[in-house]
Amino acid sequence: MNMSGARGARERMVVIGGDAAGMSAASQARRLRDPEELEIVAFERGHFTSFSACGIPYWVGGDVTDRDQLIARTPQEHRARAIDLRLRTEVTEIDVPGSRVRARDVDSGAESWTSYDKLVIATGARPIRPPLPGVDAPGVHGVQTLDDGQALLDTLAATKGRRAVVVGAGYIGVEMAEALINRGYEVTVVNSGQEPMSTLDPDMGRLVHRAMTDLGITMVNDAEVTRLPTGEDGRVRAVATEDTEYPADVVVLGIGVRPETALAKAAGLPLGDHDGLLTDLAMRVRGHENIWAGGDCVEVLDLVSGRERYIALGTHANKHGQVIGTNAGGGYATFPGVVGTAVSKVCDLEIARTGLREKDARRAGLQYVTATIESTSRAGYYPGAAPMTVKMLAERRTGRLLGTQIVGREGAAKRVDIAAVALTAGMTVDGMTSLDLGYAPPFSPVWDPVLVVARKAVNELRSSEF
Amino acid sequence: MNMSGARGARERMVVIGGDAAGMSAASQARRLRDPEELEIVAFERGHFTSFSACGIPYWVGGDVTDRDQLIARTPQEHRARAIDLRLRTEVTEIDVPGSRVRARDVDSGAESWTSYDKLVIATGARPIRPPLPGVDAPGVHGVQTLDDGQALLDTLAATKGRRAVVVGAGYIGVEMAEALINRGYEVTVVNSGQEPMSTLDPDMGRLVHRAMTDLGITMVNDAEVTRLPTGEDGRVRAVATEDTEYPADVVVLGIGVRPETALAKAAGLPLGDHDGLLTDLAMRVRGHENIWAGGDCVEVLDLVSGRERYIALGTHANKHGQVIGTNAGGGYATFPGVVGTAVSKVCDLEIARTGLREKDARRAGLQYVTATIESTSRAGYYPGAAPMTVKMLAERRTGRLLGTQIVGREGAAKRVDIAAVALTAGMTVDGMTSLDLGYAPPFSPVWDPVLVVARKAVNELRSSEF
Repeated sequence: MNMSGARGARERMVVIGGDAAGMSAASQARRLRDPEELEIVAFERGHFTSFSACGIPYWVGGDVTDRDQLIARTPQEHRARAIDLRLRTEVTEIDVPGSRVRARDVDSGAESWTSYDKLVIATGARPIRPPLPGVDAPGVHGVQTLDDGQALLDTLAATKGRRAVVVGAGYIGVEMAEALINRGYEVTVVNSGQEPMSTLDPDMGRLVHRAMTDLGITMVNDAEVTRLPTGEDGRVRAVATEDTEYPADVVVLGIGVRPETALAKAAGLPLGDHDGLLTDLAMRVRGHENIWAGGDCVEVLDLVSGRERYIALGTHANKHGQVIGTNAGGGYATFPGVVGTAVSKVCDLEIARTGLREKDARRAGLQYVTATIESTSRAGYYPGAAPMTVKMLAERRTGRLLGTQIVGREGAAKRVDIAAVALTAGMTVDGMTSLDLGYAPPFSPVWDPVLVVARKAVNELRSSEF
Repeated sequence: MNMSGARGARERMVVIGGDAAGMSAASQARRLRDPEELEIVAFERGHFTSFSACGIPYWVGGDVTDRDQLIARTPQEHRARAIDLRLRTEVTEIDVPGSRVRARDVDSGAESWTSYDKLVIATGARPIRPPLPGVDAPGVHGVQTLDDGQALLDTLAATKGRRAVVVGAGYIGVEMAEALINRGYEVTVVNSGQEPMSTLDPDMGRLVHRAMTDLGITMVNDAEVTRLPTGEDGRVRAVATEDTEYPADVVVLGIGVRPETALAKAAGLPLGDHDGLLTDLAMRVRGHENIWAGGDCVEVLDLVSGRERYIALGTHANKHGQVIGTNAGGGYATFPGVVGTAVSKVCDLEIARTGLREKDARRAGLQYVTATIESTSRAGYYPGAAPMTVKMLAERRTGRLLGTQIVGREGAAKRVDIAAVALTAGMTVDGMTSLDLGYAPPFSPVWDPVLVVARKAVNELRSSEF
């Protein structure tokens, strides 16, 4: 291990943001460096550290009963490891030439400067809140933080009506639809896209649409929300589009998030096309030897298209933190990039994707074939064998796998990992047809659905080469 | 496509064995060649074609209610596709210089020669039946064929006692233990190995042992069966080892299978160390341009160790058949080899392995480190999160993944596919730590168990390089 960094002189690492990326970085750096060598100060403007934002829909839905279960590591645990964690303390400025940050005590308003030898920016994401009339009315909720989740639960407890409208049909939207169904609400999902789950191709999104309709969820596509009408009491009473109104006793905004990079931008740090910080493979902010950034505030390299993407996902944030902590602690690690894997569920419907959609491939200038098949999660004769649809994209001529999408029931979602590894390895779909995947009747048909779709993709490739 | 092979002149392809490999080969060749070009004759000594031997334990256990569900394609369906299928017809000799086979009608005993242009040997496997006193007594059953399964079911129906002994604790043994538990039997598994599932390392096998004991199964290890004592009625009444006797109303032999290659051996075709036929990557029998072999009668290349192995598994047999049919039909396809993936379950216990065990690695001259971790199938706070233990082997110095074993509950077994693809791609465990695997609380902790064990393996590698 190359133990670079000053020896003897005590250095200070400052971390901005106390969630997954920031606290993983702090913990990993602490593992490599004693407090005598490295002081670690972490600023977090909220009340919590290291919580699972991805778990909030399941807490709201009642699958997770206790908020504290979503907290991976408490402030006390961090402090016990000699991390100087300052909650309710917001960093308001990064002074890059001066190697210092200005922080404000949220409660008292007091400000002070803290100098750093090493800086970790992990400011996360902020939910998209469209500037619609009524968006700040009581009864309208985001679900980004534990405080948001608690506020929504309080509203649900206090609300007599049972009509919920979810705005947005991405991961957060569909997961919140499930949560509200589980709470006994009549749920309408209003979605600006052609189909729900725009991270899938529309033909696969349509399967999600049908399944959600079958679950009793009212799905509205191609609908632009224009305002959130309020009642006489000032509370939200509906979600309005140009054409109509959908009555609502509670509204959940699940439109997605944007990188929280105002501080970084003001400091002159490099941002990409998606407003996320740009880093090198060691998660160093480009052009800055002693500043790292990770988690929901950075853009990541898409290994399939070779372009930067923005993906807010806890699993990446944790990996970033690990890499940053290792490097800031004097070790060496890299985050090579992503292939864009994501899984989700709505009740018993499982949804998964990795790699490029058709429009991503076109945008990247790639020519491709697609193959779509229907199969089952287990041998057809085995009880519980559930249908799944698998779509695969492969590059013309090279046959390289470009992407995979799966919509099905039990056993569908995690099968996407097969394609995720194959994408990382740059496999061709022809090479995938002979993959030695686990087979036994309770777990797979004798041809795993991923093998079946790979075979079909090979045939499509052949007929595309005229 | 290179359409080699005679055009115009009608050729004859003879297939020996009407199960997965043979009939897949026949079907695929038929897809590529019309009956006017290629006559296909298939000989099968049994009553059935294309059945799922892997499904027999679930039929015996009652999960599959109808034998016919295990038949992927009936004789009628094959014949409708212009495959001249001759059931109850056993090939008794292959005359390689004369390019012909001698076949005997099992019922009439009549024999005749059939010449071939192309020959496919898919004679399958035969169960190991140790030459023990009492092994042929009523009440002692193998579970290799549908006829075997029916005979066992008939015995179970006719037997009053509820004590079953399974000899052998490999896949068939543990699956039959589950089947008999499901039928309400008191089950004892007598196993000659140190732990059940000798396809796992003993430390992982021990977890299977404990879990099976917890299921109420009596597990006997390190026990060599010496005889099967019979009662006055001639029926089996116990399984005896040197030390003791285990009373049995029914005995199931689940000791495994050997390649059925007597015909091939008599014909002078090349066999390997495991008595399986040796083929090239196009599944051609080595040194024979017009003879192919596949399924349970061949040895396969282990891509991790670079050696030939014997693995009887339906998923390989189907792939072999596909490759053989493509090549025999004038196309081009290969079966590059296996990484040794296998999954199984006993009630809710899931067992999976891929790649090399410790002893395989030693035998191949590889130095390695191991890492073992415990994690859960879902986020720890999500309902149904079930524990799993994952073990990983990585080569010293190169860090190349060598093998992975998993024992756990729901969601454990198919995770081995991640490692199977990584093995195929020759990934290092360090490379695996940044794999972009599907994450959402219902499907995985934020660090998938496979990522956790890969990280630990990386640490083990570092400390091994002194």
